[in-house]
Amino acid sequence: MGSEKNRDIRLRQRPSGLPSPADFELVESEIPTPGRGQVLVRNLFMSVDPYMRGRMTNRKSYVAPFQLGEVLQGGAVGKVATSNNNDQFQAGDYVFSSNGWREWFVSDGADLQKIDPGPAPIQAYLGMLGMPGLTAYAGLLRIGGLKEEDRVFVSAAAGAVGAIACQIARNTGCEIVVGSTGSEEKRAYLIRELGITEAINYRECDDLAAALADAMPGGIDVYFDNVGGTHLTAALDNMRVFGRIVACGAIEHYNATEPPKGPPNLFQIVTKSLTMRGFIILNHFDMRERFLGDMNEWIADGKMTLRETVKEGIESAPEALIGLFHGENIGKMLVKLGEDGA
Amino acid sequence: MGSEKNRDIRLRQRPSGLPSPADFELVESEIPTPGRGQVLVRNLFMSVDPYMRGRMTNRKSYVAPFQLGEVLQGGAVGKVATSNNNDQFQAGDYVFSSNGWREWFVSDGADLQKIDPGPAPIQAYLGMLGMPGLTAYAGLLRIGGLKEEDRVFVSAAAGAVGAIACQIARNTGCEIVVGSTGSEEKRAYLIRELGITEAINYRECDDLAAALADAMPGGIDVYFDNVGGTHLTAALDNMRVFGRIVACGAIEHYNATEPPKGPPNLFQIVTKSLTMRGFIILNHFDMRERFLGDMNEWIADGKMTLRETVKEGIESAPEALIGLFHGENIGKMLVKLGEDGA
Repeated sequence: MGSEKNRDIRLRQRPSGLPSPADFELVESEIPTPGRGQVLVRNLFMSVDPYMRGRMTNRKSYVAPFQLGEVLQGGAVGKVATSNNNDQFQAGDYVFSSNGWREWFVSDGADLQKIDPGPAPIQAYLGMLGMPGLTAYAGLLRIGGLKEEDRVFVSAAAGAVGAIACQIARNTGCEIVVGSTGSEEKRAYLIRELGITEAINYRECDDLAAALADAMPGGIDVYFDNVGGTHLTAALDNMRVFGRIVACGAIEHYNATEPPKGPPNLFQIVTKSLTMRGFIILNHFDMRERFLGDMNEWIADGKMTLRETVKEGIESAPEALIGLFHGENIGKMLVKLGEDGA
Repeated sequence: MGSEKNRDIRLRQRPSGLPSPADFELVESEIPTPGRGQVLVRNLFMSVDPYMRGRMTNRKSYVAPFQLGEVLQGGAVGKVATSNNNDQFQAGDYVFSSNGWREWFVSDGADLQKIDPGPAPIQAYLGMLGMPGLTAYAGLLRIGGLKEEDRVFVSAAAGAVGAIACQIARNTGCEIVVGSTGSEEKRAYLIRELGITEAINYRECDDLAAALADAMPGGIDVYFDNVGGTHLTAALDNMRVFGRIVACGAIEHYNATEPPKGPPNLFQIVTKSLTMRGFIILNHFDMRERFLGDMNEWIADGKMTLRETVKEGIESAPEALIGLFHGENIGKMLVKLGEDGA
């Protein structure tokens, strides 16, 4: 860190299955010089998120695939080092951008959002106050139509989106909020720190559907699905009539090299009058103001927290991303790219 | 027909896979005598519907399973032969009930609905004006939120629900309505009689997803799913962003002896922001008045028809039901139980 060079990470080859470090390339270059009207930004934190795996595969989807040899993209928070655009940005301003996977970059400002360092550490804009937070918020409240009386199940509950979803459900007044996760440490985190009703360590249970039935004998009204596959199947078996499935992610499948098996019990969507609804957070940015209002209030009241798992230095970004698929993170997985003030 | 005995059909044993005639039992008994306040009804037509297969399996679902040795149940239309309840019913009144699979029955009237023989032949209350019609209507308009600009795909389109769904979509103004079906004769029925845009004979195409892409190059906004399985998979591949899947039935799976495969491409629910919503028509009877109003108007205007495939005599009811799973019916499959006026 604090090198006098700029470093970035590029996609060297498209991963087959789980990404490996050899799929990435660290490239060193000069720190760019901002031109007229431009600012120079020093990134402080970048985000790694499971959805990024999808962009590494060359297929049509809701967002264009990453191109080989080009710098990867993703959420980052940084600080303006030099500004030639003082009407909009001053040196010292904190900014969010999608220009992650690099230490420094120049911008004309159009792709920067100024962020308020007041309510929480700035990296919260990659977590609670950023895309994972808005994903949990829009997913539960708009897509899932969450109501106080709902019994809620969240998979990958100790991940960034899952942990926030658990707390939104709890803060909404839902009495039964159950999460699934992959270790006893995370289980303890969910119950003790996030205060949810029960947490299931899916790696330690032979029959997830039965474990869910034990934890939620009344069944599930809203399932926030981050996992797909086995979790979706087990949840379907436990959905209540008129239940809603918020289809957010399917981390179980992101590294699959063959088409995954769909849930054999999908017909319960008919027999139980279920609604399964998918969403992409890009289509729900209109909720951002309301989201930030609620989140900042919850944070101020001590009712919203998110642990961070932080890897140091841009060179660790590939392993941070890969670590998501091994469940290495509790809460938000971040890569620290620079010291504030450095 | 016109026998002086009553005959009914009972479930002798639970079918394994496709039902066979040996699973059913024809039982003869005396024609019952109505007691005080009761009416005697002569059934004229009974309905067989794919959902009945589910009730033959002993499992918990939205409706209780049929019991072995008891008379089966299902929609029927009949005529009051004798009334000891003249405040409510007169001899000669036409009634709908769930007391199918029998020629005669007595009732205190609570389970009877008087029907108007004016707008269409009375057996229409088992088809266009009955449960299949309301299923198509509520499914498209409420569950699918059908709008004039939608491009609609209906599977099992020449079946009772499918054929009505096709015409509701067409009558709503949808310019592209495509159906799938299992024979060239049915294909011609869909295009020539129902006036939809295109029909796909799925038995004649190697790649249903590709055939759909040919028939609907712009993709599908609303998929009315009566089939599940291969059809759902092919439809998912062709859904447009924000598309809606009306999960009505899964006839491909009703006789499965092993858990079916779920769609391997279900994750498109996320990437395309799809909504898949199941429903049971019992929960949508509040739409009945609006439904009958629209349907009767369409029928009067010549904009709603439904072919009937009629088997004669209660002894043919099991083969009529089994025939549904072989695709023997065009439009509504009915069993004629008696002559009107006999």
